[in-house]
Amino acid sequence: MIQEMSLTKKIVKYQDGKLQTVDDDIVTEFPLTIFVNNEEFATMVCTPTHFDEMVIGFLASEGVIRFRDDIKSINIDESKGYAHIELYANVTTSQQYYSKRFIGSCCGKSRQFYFHNDARTAKTSTSTTTLTPDQCISLMKDMQNISIVFQETGGVHNAALCSPDEMLVSRTDIGRHNALDKLYGYSLLNRVPVRDKVIVFSGRISSEVLVKAAKIGVGIVLSKSAPTDLAIKLAEDLNITAVGFIRGGTFNVYSHPHRIVLPE
Amino acid sequence: MIQEMSLTKKIVKYQDGKLQTVDDDIVTEFPLTIFVNNEEFATMVCTPTHFDEMVIGFLASEGVIRFRDDIKSINIDESKGYAHIELYANVTTSQQYYSKRFIGSCCGKSRQFYFHNDARTAKTSTSTTTLTPDQCISLMKDMQNISIVFQETGGVHNAALCSPDEMLVSRTDIGRHNALDKLYGYSLLNRVPVRDKVIVFSGRISSEVLVKAAKIGVGIVLSKSAPTDLAIKLAEDLNITAVGFIRGGTFNVYSHPHRIVLPE
Repeated sequence: MIQEMSLTKKIVKYQDGKLQTVDDDIVTEFPLTIFVNNEEFATMVCTPTHFDEMVIGFLASEGVIRFRDDIKSINIDESKGYAHIELYANVTTSQQYYSKRFIGSCCGKSRQFYFHNDARTAKTSTSTTTLTPDQCISLMKDMQNISIVFQETGGVHNAALCSPDEMLVSRTDIGRHNALDKLYGYSLLNRVPVRDKVIVFSGRISSEVLVKAAKIGVGIVLSKSAPTDLAIKLAEDLNITAVGFIRGGTFNVYSHPHRIVLPE
Repeated sequence: MIQEMSLTKKIVKYQDGKLQTVDDDIVTEFPLTIFVNNEEFATMVCTPTHFDEMVIGFLASEGVIRFRDDIKSINIDESKGYAHIELYANVTTSQQYYSKRFIGSCCGKSRQFYFHNDARTAKTSTSTTTLTPDQCISLMKDMQNISIVFQETGGVHNAALCSPDEMLVSRTDIGRHNALDKLYGYSLLNRVPVRDKVIVFSGRISSEVLVKAAKIGVGIVLSKSAPTDLAIKLAEDLNITAVGFIRGGTFNVYSHPHRIVLPE
């Protein structure tokens, strides 16, 4: 059983004063329940591609694993919508722990984290990568050009992992976090160094998207859309350059603008 | 302390080959942690408006309360980002229970729910309301006209509760679910009957958005964007008319098209 990213369905279209039945492309949505060492951990509702990357990226993002070598086995049962992950270590996967708000200021800085696992796993960037304005605009264009499902159905997010000069890999999902988790899983599975890389994202930079980028470990995030104030504060704290509203040859730099440099 | 929906910030803008510092409007994002009978229940990251509506709508949506009279007191502490809700009844707010996937087919139908609380609280619509195409298009236009924050910052979702002829109330949030929870809370707080109402939504109709509409209790959902295949299946099961891609005088009806009728 292979899941499809979209399927054709009969719908009723209103046009020119008439209601008529036509075929339309509909984006699919698939619930995948993750079991870690036989214990139910979470259910992700996702676009059914790259399950292994998504699960590994999600578990790394939640601080359950750090490296691909932490995983003993991973089995995806598409017919049931289950992913069974066996780790070498025993882990505490208590929902209580992972969903609790992080209250306090134990790290001595005024970081705006609000979940325990974010405070544990988001890294301050040490990236020395810089981009020219043309590179920012060009990487966004590259990502948009390959997002076919989005153009057909208008219903998914796209994320890409790039070097300054080219897009290395892009992933699509109806869930913004899933698209980023797939990139994270890709980089872990293929042991791709991320410190010098850039994430290009089709959606808004919320605080959760920014934290996810920090967990993956990049120093620059490019977006077609706007960040929130909390995302900008986090980007300032975590030394990440957040660039948004890349449209029609212009864009905005919201934090650490030293990484965006005009050509000499 | 009054939270603002957006604020002005200095950013670096790239335009006409130059990088220069300008003022920009940034949408705010606020973490609110909900305590029910003194037990931590969840943290919502939201646009800081209508906290009481959002919390009540969320608790109703999760099946923790059914009516406004279930609530003894509600206290919002904006400076700490806490909401304290006291209920008359003792409730089980175990995360384990609320986040567990709903596996099985105990209700005898092939419903696609994947969380316990969804299966408990989503209602099959008995709405007899119908809309003409012009009403669909007009309600979408009304909602878009009042969403000023969206136009300024490009970063929020809008949802409105409408009768066939007019918009009754609209709410804005960076989180799609929060905007719908605010509408749900509004209807509970003001004892507004919802069976004959319509929800108009700015974003994609995901399965979670459709389930939320079913919990609120409306029979028609109008969206500017596309639904997913799972949302359409749920809409078919729950007798909800899902209308999407309302743009430029045309739209698509994805389920139960009998509620969209041409004028005689």
